[in-house]
Amino acid sequence: MTTYSELNHAPFRDRFVIDEPGVAYLDGNSLGRLPKATVAKMEQVVSDEWGRALIGSWNQAWLPISRRIGDKIGSLIGAAPGGTLVCDSTSINLYKVAWALLQHRGRRRTIVTDAVNFPTDLYILDGLRRQLGPDLRLESLDLDQGNHAEVGSILASAINNETALVCLSHVNYKTGYAFSMEQVTEMAHAHGAPILWDLSHGVGAVPIDLGTAKVDAAVGCTYKYLNGGPGAPAFLTVRADWIERLQNPIQGWFGAARPFDFGSVYVPHLGIERFAVGTPPILSLAAVEPGVDLTCEAGMHALRQRGWQLMQYFFTLFDQRLEKLGFKLVTPRNPEAAGSHVSFTHPAAWQITQDLVQHHRVIPDFRGPDIIRFGITPLYTLGREIEQAVAALESSLTHGTYRAYPTQRRGVT
Amino acid sequence: MTTYSELNHAPFRDRFVIDEPGVAYLDGNSLGRLPKATVAKMEQVVSDEWGRALIGSWNQAWLPISRRIGDKIGSLIGAAPGGTLVCDSTSINLYKVAWALLQHRGRRRTIVTDAVNFPTDLYILDGLRRQLGPDLRLESLDLDQGNHAEVGSILASAINNETALVCLSHVNYKTGYAFSMEQVTEMAHAHGAPILWDLSHGVGAVPIDLGTAKVDAAVGCTYKYLNGGPGAPAFLTVRADWIERLQNPIQGWFGAARPFDFGSVYVPHLGIERFAVGTPPILSLAAVEPGVDLTCEAGMHALRQRGWQLMQYFFTLFDQRLEKLGFKLVTPRNPEAAGSHVSFTHPAAWQITQDLVQHHRVIPDFRGPDIIRFGITPLYTLGREIEQAVAALESSLTHGTYRAYPTQRRGVT
Repeated sequence: MTTYSELNHAPFRDRFVIDEPGVAYLDGNSLGRLPKATVAKMEQVVSDEWGRALIGSWNQAWLPISRRIGDKIGSLIGAAPGGTLVCDSTSINLYKVAWALLQHRGRRRTIVTDAVNFPTDLYILDGLRRQLGPDLRLESLDLDQGNHAEVGSILASAINNETALVCLSHVNYKTGYAFSMEQVTEMAHAHGAPILWDLSHGVGAVPIDLGTAKVDAAVGCTYKYLNGGPGAPAFLTVRADWIERLQNPIQGWFGAARPFDFGSVYVPHLGIERFAVGTPPILSLAAVEPGVDLTCEAGMHALRQRGWQLMQYFFTLFDQRLEKLGFKLVTPRNPEAAGSHVSFTHPAAWQITQDLVQHHRVIPDFRGPDIIRFGITPLYTLGREIEQAVAALESSLTHGTYRAYPTQRRGVT
Repeated sequence: MTTYSELNHAPFRDRFVIDEPGVAYLDGNSLGRLPKATVAKMEQVVSDEWGRALIGSWNQAWLPISRRIGDKIGSLIGAAPGGTLVCDSTSINLYKVAWALLQHRGRRRTIVTDAVNFPTDLYILDGLRRQLGPDLRLESLDLDQGNHAEVGSILASAINNETALVCLSHVNYKTGYAFSMEQVTEMAHAHGAPILWDLSHGVGAVPIDLGTAKVDAAVGCTYKYLNGGPGAPAFLTVRADWIERLQNPIQGWFGAARPFDFGSVYVPHLGIERFAVGTPPILSLAAVEPGVDLTCEAGMHALRQRGWQLMQYFFTLFDQRLEKLGFKLVTPRNPEAAGSHVSFTHPAAWQITQDLVQHHRVIPDFRGPDIIRFGITPLYTLGREIEQAVAALESSLTHGTYRAYPTQRRGVT
């Protein structure tokens, strides 16, 4: 049994800039906090490397970053060294890798995905379906994400010898449901189909082992649980035996074997670097490393253990104090089937979210039409932030203060 | 007649961090210097906007940046407001826009480009040619870039009713030759073909007027003369009447009309935002603005005037002191046909470049097989930096000190 005092002990919390007294920040799954080491790193990159060393920094500092951080992220997700690269955005990486895998589809014609996948994943796949010819179709499954058995049976009837690619988000951005990566990957492979996982909503908070599951490829975001900064470059990872067989549709010079030879014929890099395109945005790229380093230092096992204790604490308070107020929990209570955020529905979810942010200094986020989502970042979330959120929800509902806010949502949060 | 004292007066030079006494930095066309305002801006974005305001900064600060800086760059290149966006890399932007224009090719089958175009442009176009079907071909013209008349006659015989797209770099990265944008655009339009210009090697130093030339679309880099930072996000611009007709091949959520509705069906934004893809890398993106602001403040006319005075000074010293040492000038001496860098060839160019950098504190760069390239950034380059470069070249050749360096090149510079 975890004590409340243990829930409020986050050994890595003081490695972050935390400068808003009284705020419960439960949105690290949308934008992770700023590591203190990143402040120093950015001063170094801006003033010393750019300002003083200028062009010489490409050789002395910048060229190896994409692969070096890639390997560190690889170590967090069970990818082999040399298989992971930090570059571009998650959407662009998904486009490149899905396109590349689909070149090997032969006569297979169906891309299988999840109807409630993150929108950009659906948009990218739908764009590829149209681009790559009239024979392809996108099958967006209506998965009831309550448990693995139901999900498994729906997937089992959808994946077959016609399947060209299975593309899913490991953790659903709304419900927090986590697929069984090993089972679903095996299902795809049993029918000869490759699988591409989007790890955005779990990486850095949930243990992932691509190697054991023999996953073909994955992409993911670094600005959530990895604390890489707003819009930080994403990563992509490809299983070793695929790398040389996959072709990047966007043939840019940073994906070439020898970009600084300035040759006129594109010869792709033999390694994962072939998935790079243009010059990487160094300020944003360099900022990714301190957050990844903290995650590596903490270790995924310890992080998940702490994260799940916080999730269980939230579930307990939900049962005791929130269910009776009309909230409905949608996140699975089984650690094998859940990521690291707690979501529940309420018909007035948008108004309640506004009341929490503006009146109670609690920062969750809203996902339409009716979900309030609370991110649990094991590196820095405290039990008392969860307690503050629950108290704020109770207060908002009991006093009806949320009704003062417009029912129409605007903006991002 | 410009005096030496005028050549050493750069009114905007003290707006940059310049911290290497004795160094002649003539590589601002590869990586522009750090504006002082960018140091303050980065502290604000990192510590205040990310560290303190966290997720709230998307609405309060970050969402409008791509369009706002886009419009500022648009004002420098004669693009209409609302037509320019800062996002992704130049290579990715070229891919998206070229792909989009090629969807309108009908029965036209040839992409016309320049055999000595920047490699990434050639790679991207060649990739598109293969992707978009067996009917397309890439015609890389062997243009003798000495003067507009020769270039014009080669282009005139290559562009015809079969031309699906003309795609050229306005200023050549090696020679410094600048196409006549108006003439070449007119030539493409006379045959019903759209034109896509890569402005990377001129924007911020050379006057460009896309509007007058009726250019269809352009892309370009912000980390050279615009001083946006290493690998800073690039821009793309599309003529107003094209925007709604062009489709982004990489359908990501930031290109959607209402990304934060999280709808499952992609509806493209009506404006230039449709060419966005994923979440932009905010730290790198925000760093672009101070350099662009300085350029707008200085004004393109004044900048080019000062830049061309420096170019002429370099040409004069070349004639007096360098030609006799075996250097051969390849940059046109006509301001209508040249960008803002001076290039010459020498059989020992790589060794000489090393000697300049390591022994003489002069930073040019090398482009194989035999070019040394000196960037003139009107905002901060001084006459005495050019004098220092010329003296270093004289010394290196006269004393033969360059022979101490290996003939094999490595790395970036």
